[in-house]
Order: sequence, then C-alpha cells, then structure tokens
Amino acid sequence: MTMPKTQEGTSLLPGNLHEPGDCRAISAVLSRVGDKWTVLVVSALGGGPKRFNELRKALGSISQRMLTLTLRALERDGLVTRTVFPTVPPRVDYELTRLGRSLLEPVNGLSAWARANRTAMEAARARFDANEPAK
Amino acid sequence: MTMPKTQEGTSLLPGNLHEPGDCRAISAVLSRVGDKWTVLVVSALGGGPKRFNELRKALGSISQRMLTLTLRALERDGLVTRTVFPTVPPRVDYELTRLGRSLLEPVNGLSAWARANRTAMEAARARFDANEPAK
Repeated sequence: MTMPKTQEGTSLLPGNLHEPGDCRAISAVLSRVGDKWTVLVVSALGGGPKRFNELRKALGSISQRMLTLTLRALERDGLVTRTVFPTVPPRVDYELTRLGRSLLEPVNGLSAWARANRTAMEAARARFDANEPAK
Repeated sequence: MTMPKTQEGTSLLPGNLHEPGDCRAISAVLSRVGDKWTVLVVSALGGGPKRFNELRKALGSISQRMLTLTLRALERDGLVTRTVFPTVPPRVDYELTRLGRSLLEPVNGLSAWARANRTAMEAARARFDANEPAK
C-alpha cells in the first residue's frame, strides 16, 4: 500500500535529537517516566500535597511497598519532596517540587494521548495479528 | 523541610485518571513509549518517510535487529506503515501513520523536558545519594 507523502515535512525535533547527550537524557527520563506508577503518582500529586495513605487510596491497586519505592525514586530524582511534621503520630506529606510540577505537562500530554488512542492502537494490533501468517 | 503549598491547586488530569481503563491505557502506551528506541524512531520519522538504512544511519547506535523489532512493533500498533516499492532491489519505506504523527507531540514534549531537565535530575540524584547514611 502506498501512502501519500506526509504534509509535515519537518520533524518537530530538529536534527539535534540524536546527539549522544540527548539519547542519554531521554533514556534517563524514560527510565523514570516509562513506569506506570511514576506517571500515576506524579499525576495524583498534581492536585497538591498528599499523605502516604491518601496517595495509596487514590491509586487503588498499588502495594505499600511499590508506593514506597516509587516515592523514594521520585524524591531521589528531585521530583517530589517528603516533609515530616512533628505531630504525634508524625505526619508525612509528599509534594511535587517545581521540577516535578514541570513534568506534569508532558506526562499529562502522554496520558491524554493514551486515553484518546487506546482503542485505535488495540484495533491496529488485532488487525495486524489477524493478517499474520500462521507459524 | 516544609514546602509552601502549591499554587496549582488542581490536577491537570481530573479525577477520572484513576479509572481502571485509564490505568490500562496508560500501561499499554507506556509499554510502547517507555522504550528509548520507539521514541527515537517515532521522532526520526517525524521528518517524513525513511528507508530502513536511512533510519539506521539517523539513529546511530541502533542494531539492525533492534531496529527491525522496533519497526515491527510500531507497525503492529498502527503507528508506522511499511511500504514496499516493486523496484530492483525492492525499496521499503517506513512512515508514520496519522496515529503515529499524533504521538509526535506528546513524545516531543517529553523529549524536550528530558533535554531541559536532565542536569537538574542528575544534580538531585547526586545530592540525595550524598545525604544517604552509609549502610
């Protein structure tokens, strides 16, 4: 099947995408963002600071251990702060840093694309698999 | 450390993010987009159709096998078309579909974030690791 040439003759990302530094930058960020729980935690914190148990409730099926690991990785990357309030029992809030808030926009762009195009992707997969010769 | 409450009191993603369907959609898309080569191939095809060897050259360090696998997965997901021209030898073009082109925007948003904030993330990691008590 021949497709017409695309109208968008230029890449949104100019040639400098493929510099080694960019490759490393993208790998580093994808290793963080290419994780479902990271995306969901960052998104859940988009509404403001939350306590551990509030986050856990908001995320439904996440385990305590996975939420702990995800929050710790986000804290290490400078995307989330952990604040302990000297109450009894101590209250611990998690909150996006400025860097973390700046990640909301691309993360939400990806989430919106996912919601809008999941069905199209699934249909494409079914068509592709139906056309595959049996092995 | 106490952080001031964020100005952005509302999430960019309203409450419906955490519906099961959204979780699945995001997982499905991240399993595709959370892969460095997928992002780089989609981005490289943003400039228009390319032949296999053009892509390989554009991506520098990708192996023939990894490029083949990545393109096949993208074709399966309806993001890329593969067109064989009946020349001798046959010429094979890869091109983003309309769906694939729609993915360029969020992918480029993420890449731009990565380029802009890689240094900040690396610095945060170094600070965090320096403050960790030895084990």
